[in-house]
Amino acid sequence: MRLLVLALFAVSGGTYADSNILGFDADSSAAQKTLEAEFDGLIDAEKMDEWLRVMSTLPHHVGSPASKKNAEYIAELLTSWGYDTEIAAYEILLPMPKTREVELVAPTKFTASLTEDSLSEDPSTERREGLLPPYNAFSRDGEVEAELVFVNYGMPADYEVLERYGIDVTGKIAIAKYGRSWRGIKPKLAGEKGAIGTIIYSDPIDDGYGAGDVYPNGPFKHESGVQRGSVMDMPTYPGDVLTPGRGATEGARRLKRENAPTITKIPVLPISYRDALPLLRAMGGEVVPPEWRGGLPITYHLGPGPARVRMKAEFHWNMVTAYNVIARLEGSQYPDEWVIRGNHHDGWNHGASDPLSGQIAMLAEARAVAELARSGKRPTRTIIYAAWDAEEPGLIGSTEWVEHHADELNEHAIAYINTDGSSRGFLGIGGSHVLEQYLNEVADDVSDPRMDISLKERRRAFLEINGDPKMRSDAKSRDDLRISPLGSGSDYTPFLQHMGIASVNLGFGGEAADGSYHTLYDTYEHFTKFKDPGLVYGATLAKVAGRATLRLANAQRLPFDFRGLADNVVLYVSEIEELADTMRTQTERENEMIEKGSYAAALNPYKSFGPPTMKSPVPHFSFAPLKNALNRMHSAAAEFHAAVTTSNVSSAEINNLLYTSERLLTRDEGLDGRPWYKHHIYAPGFYTGYGVKTIPGVRESIEQREYEKVGTQIEIAAEVLDAVTERLEILTRKVSGESQ
Amino acid sequence: MRLLVLALFAVSGGTYADSNILGFDADSSAAQKTLEAEFDGLIDAEKMDEWLRVMSTLPHHVGSPASKKNAEYIAELLTSWGYDTEIAAYEILLPMPKTREVELVAPTKFTASLTEDSLSEDPSTERREGLLPPYNAFSRDGEVEAELVFVNYGMPADYEVLERYGIDVTGKIAIAKYGRSWRGIKPKLAGEKGAIGTIIYSDPIDDGYGAGDVYPNGPFKHESGVQRGSVMDMPTYPGDVLTPGRGATEGARRLKRENAPTITKIPVLPISYRDALPLLRAMGGEVVPPEWRGGLPITYHLGPGPARVRMKAEFHWNMVTAYNVIARLEGSQYPDEWVIRGNHHDGWNHGASDPLSGQIAMLAEARAVAELARSGKRPTRTIIYAAWDAEEPGLIGSTEWVEHHADELNEHAIAYINTDGSSRGFLGIGGSHVLEQYLNEVADDVSDPRMDISLKERRRAFLEINGDPKMRSDAKSRDDLRISPLGSGSDYTPFLQHMGIASVNLGFGGEAADGSYHTLYDTYEHFTKFKDPGLVYGATLAKVAGRATLRLANAQRLPFDFRGLADNVVLYVSEIEELADTMRTQTERENEMIEKGSYAAALNPYKSFGPPTMKSPVPHFSFAPLKNALNRMHSAAAEFHAAVTTSNVSSAEINNLLYTSERLLTRDEGLDGRPWYKHHIYAPGFYTGYGVKTIPGVRESIEQREYEKVGTQIEIAAEVLDAVTERLEILTRKVSGESQ
Repeated sequence: MRLLVLALFAVSGGTYADSNILGFDADSSAAQKTLEAEFDGLIDAEKMDEWLRVMSTLPHHVGSPASKKNAEYIAELLTSWGYDTEIAAYEILLPMPKTREVELVAPTKFTASLTEDSLSEDPSTERREGLLPPYNAFSRDGEVEAELVFVNYGMPADYEVLERYGIDVTGKIAIAKYGRSWRGIKPKLAGEKGAIGTIIYSDPIDDGYGAGDVYPNGPFKHESGVQRGSVMDMPTYPGDVLTPGRGATEGARRLKRENAPTITKIPVLPISYRDALPLLRAMGGEVVPPEWRGGLPITYHLGPGPARVRMKAEFHWNMVTAYNVIARLEGSQYPDEWVIRGNHHDGWNHGASDPLSGQIAMLAEARAVAELARSGKRPTRTIIYAAWDAEEPGLIGSTEWVEHHADELNEHAIAYINTDGSSRGFLGIGGSHVLEQYLNEVADDVSDPRMDISLKERRRAFLEINGDPKMRSDAKSRDDLRISPLGSGSDYTPFLQHMGIASVNLGFGGEAADGSYHTLYDTYEHFTKFKDPGLVYGATLAKVAGRATLRLANAQRLPFDFRGLADNVVLYVSEIEELADTMRTQTERENEMIEKGSYAAALNPYKSFGPPTMKSPVPHFSFAPLKNALNRMHSAAAEFHAAVTTSNVSSAEINNLLYTSERLLTRDEGLDGRPWYKHHIYAPGFYTGYGVKTIPGVRESIEQREYEKVGTQIEIAAEVLDAVTERLEILTRKVSGESQ
Repeated sequence: MRLLVLALFAVSGGTYADSNILGFDADSSAAQKTLEAEFDGLIDAEKMDEWLRVMSTLPHHVGSPASKKNAEYIAELLTSWGYDTEIAAYEILLPMPKTREVELVAPTKFTASLTEDSLSEDPSTERREGLLPPYNAFSRDGEVEAELVFVNYGMPADYEVLERYGIDVTGKIAIAKYGRSWRGIKPKLAGEKGAIGTIIYSDPIDDGYGAGDVYPNGPFKHESGVQRGSVMDMPTYPGDVLTPGRGATEGARRLKRENAPTITKIPVLPISYRDALPLLRAMGGEVVPPEWRGGLPITYHLGPGPARVRMKAEFHWNMVTAYNVIARLEGSQYPDEWVIRGNHHDGWNHGASDPLSGQIAMLAEARAVAELARSGKRPTRTIIYAAWDAEEPGLIGSTEWVEHHADELNEHAIAYINTDGSSRGFLGIGGSHVLEQYLNEVADDVSDPRMDISLKERRRAFLEINGDPKMRSDAKSRDDLRISPLGSGSDYTPFLQHMGIASVNLGFGGEAADGSYHTLYDTYEHFTKFKDPGLVYGATLAKVAGRATLRLANAQRLPFDFRGLADNVVLYVSEIEELADTMRTQTERENEMIEKGSYAAALNPYKSFGPPTMKSPVPHFSFAPLKNALNRMHSAAAEFHAAVTTSNVSSAEINNLLYTSERLLTRDEGLDGRPWYKHHIYAPGFYTGYGVKTIPGVRESIEQREYEKVGTQIEIAAEVLDAVTERLEILTRKVSGESQ
């Protein structure tokens, strides 16, 4: 109730002109800039290096002694700097590998080693105490034996191709390449198609010698390297598989394991390309289509067989404790408005890059913020630093904490700012589009550590040179750079998509290879040699994320701007219309070609590849409700912007109306078939996993050819936009009316 | 002079309606169809199989005893069928390998075997008597030692990329992949850029296990297989290097070898991917760009070095005799009008596919034509069957014969119809566009041997399914399928591009791999197992080419139609305009990005890859003269068509005016810098070799950024088109005037 008793306040130093930091008047903008300069001076790359060394010494996956030790180490640091720190523990189900076997039983024999080599060039790889062998968390137990079918990346389109070859995976083991989709989609889809097991491997064309020099000579995947990772069905819900929608506290109500819908339906194991070679070499059947080829020195075949494989995956289904470190710095003026800033701390093994490179940047930032607070520059709002555990097996630590504290977060959370493993190159910014302008300002105010230009300008140059035509034209003509919509893949998901808390994800990338990802080789040595020597981009990340945090914490009026939202949603709607048009034209054309026999005439009679099957015509959809809603939101956003730039009025009520606006983009019912996901503008794809689907209700109905659902989904999307419009009209009245 | 005394004749059976075969009236059209049915019945695949076995027994490259024996065998067959046969011999310079050495001298040692394995699965590969080891004919002699630089496919664009990496090939040995361009371009360009040697290898990603199963399990290149081939600078002139423009008769005036401009400037050797692997593995420097990667199990590097190679290529520069078999069947009515039909007979080794698969189709056709003649259905015009020697080292047999008989050919040659090695799948038709409609009719009247549809409809289906959007829309909306313009790569070049004789090239392809190309593995076994089992497509080729020959030989009015020419040249002009526009936009954009520093900002500071260099802006060119000329030709072609479809007049004079019209597209001066090439609509690319450049004077001036030349070249192209227009106006008057 504190919110209501806070008085309105008039800003002292003039209006919120565009030349000031968004949300600050001239005086406070200048003060904030001074504060940020001081903040920059407190970022200490040497300390970051020390923390990185300490925390990456031993494998520190959730449930391991090293993970608990790291959590305590982080808590101690934060406490020592003055944070009110707690370790928030949750009891979660975590499968740990018991038996892992992959064996070629015909036409030749071969037993996969399923082991990564220690390398004398990298002492960390020789520290194998507590090492987690390669596995996919949340594969079910199972032992199966069957012929192999090569399913490319195991995506929906790949199965359409297999169908044209007359190949059915029913009763077979699917062998899929890592990449192109989140890994969990591969066994999910293979299982839906009837396969009884899935093997996933990293092909050297994508992540090995085909892509570049391999470790230890270069950053790419060593021949024995295996990508671990979760295959939990996160597009259904992330977090503890037994407690969807509830915090996994000790006494929480739990599903039975056999009823947990996010555990795979078939066993899955990941292998290296060294282990994959004998399996793939033993395959026969048609040669794969050219775009399916990998980089092994063999001809790739589709199968089925004659390669026949036995695989066995058994797990200890343990209850383990996840330790989130939660550190609070109470705001000087608005302690009940929370800016939440997080990065996970659990890795698969040594985890230097993923997640510690981001964790040390967050710690450097937290240290500097605390230092400023100690010297009297305490933020006006509360900042919460969170070091999440159990992100790797399925965003579990963050999800459980969010679910556990849903009511408080709903009331107090202004925004969530996430980082994760970070590398070097260009600043990537994903997030809620109401934050687009504010994030552009942040990126404009920090310089690239290697070049004398701002991060924003460097990213703009990148888009101008490497972007597609639309990106290039935007980069040239649009003042703000577009930020990316968020799908999934890190801890922002429960905040954004479950709670409707405006979220941000920040990180550097684009210049260094990620071949160590989730392998034994993600070590201090690999990271500091190949990814961010000197941690210069890590230190810059601390400056970026720190500014983002401090501006939200100190802004007089929260820097939410709705023009960016409207502008980006317009883009998504036009993308979806184009998608429908393209599908319609292609379907018509394909059906026509099938009917008149062109496929039959054009296909090679010496091969088994047949024509596609006829598909239902794609109807025309009325996007009018959505476009009308967008027009209304566009006008309302412009009016609100006009009001805020001419008025110096702010208030806690206005701020509350601002930061809860993101909640309006959610609906309690959630998305069709996956109620945990409540946001109707951003969601991870049901069949892509990490990849975002914007306006997912509409887009996925079309993509999945469920045309009867499209109209309703358009209405729903229009409704959530209208709710924001209504909010903006209230806000405009509040801001304008009170300024007169 | 015979041409002038031939009287005009009025066609007996009505007009040349569109429903008849083009150039035939109703009665003669019906008679021709009956003849063709009889002709089809005379095509004997069993005989073809026998000829193929006999002629592919031993390696039969020009100068070998087996090649002479094959020429005599062909001559005997043709003589036995009633042809007036001669062996036309030419004395040509031919380098034969003496020393071939490729040795890695640092950082490790390796000596390339340069030898192809015999395979017990293919007895032909065990017959190595007279085997020509892998080499590139018309490499100069030389021994060099230097660091390697990887130049991708060795094309102009590849050197632009190397320049951005700061890599200069001066003083180095360039190692290039086969493919994407005619092989001779690779050493030509490497030499121009300063390299001192070139090694060419077939990468398995293009032609080996990466593409499909390798021989003997499949059709693709065995790891020891090496593509032989000429590297003579054929885009300057083909044929004997010592006698450009003159027949290489015994007493002909000859250049000194050291003055022959078409011998390479640096030594070249081809190697297998098995031999290439140790060389490439030993390379260092930057990793190649992703699109340059090959299929060997290594990381590809650009160099230079540390791999250092010594290569030595020495040749016996012998004068050898090329034996063309020339067989004549005198026409019953117009013996001085010659339809010429050719296919070479020399191979690199056993040459079952290249060239014998085409040679046996031609022989089957010649046998059937002779059989018909013996039964009283002698063609009205003279048919000349030519089995060329020395095509492989540089189209030498055909070029020398054409140069030798230039005056007679200029007077008598109606058209030249070529085949070469042929495979299975879709009928490919290249040729002069005045023949487009006639060739469409031929393709419409022959059925695919595996499917119950015409070759034309099968090709249309192929284009509808696999073509680019322009091809697809053409295939749907245009009655005639476009035939391809001819570049180079087989014996039509001297006829078409040196003489201006309307030419055709026919062959099947698209369904079988060509991994045996120019290797030891181009055997009877490989061909009949993987390319054309049962020779069903070979027999069909005989039906297609035989119809094409017989229709030209028997037509009352020659089936030249100029609407196809106009329509295709319109397309080429629009392509060139688009090319100029694209280059202009890209150059502007690139220069702008360089100037404002976007490249510098977007590039990875940890790598050596730099921005491109500024280029001169691309001016606007006036295509008006060319377009106006095209409009005139378009109208004239339409008027001529209207005249011929309503008139039944023909005459030897009209036919002569028709068949010499292709000459009007040539100019005595030839193309800028390569006077041997006289055709101004079709030429092989100066930097692509086989690939055609239409309206080459204009197109290549723009591509090579020689902007000051473009205006003149547009005028020249307009002039040759106007010459055709003028001819059409005369023809229309002749046809119409004489019909009243």
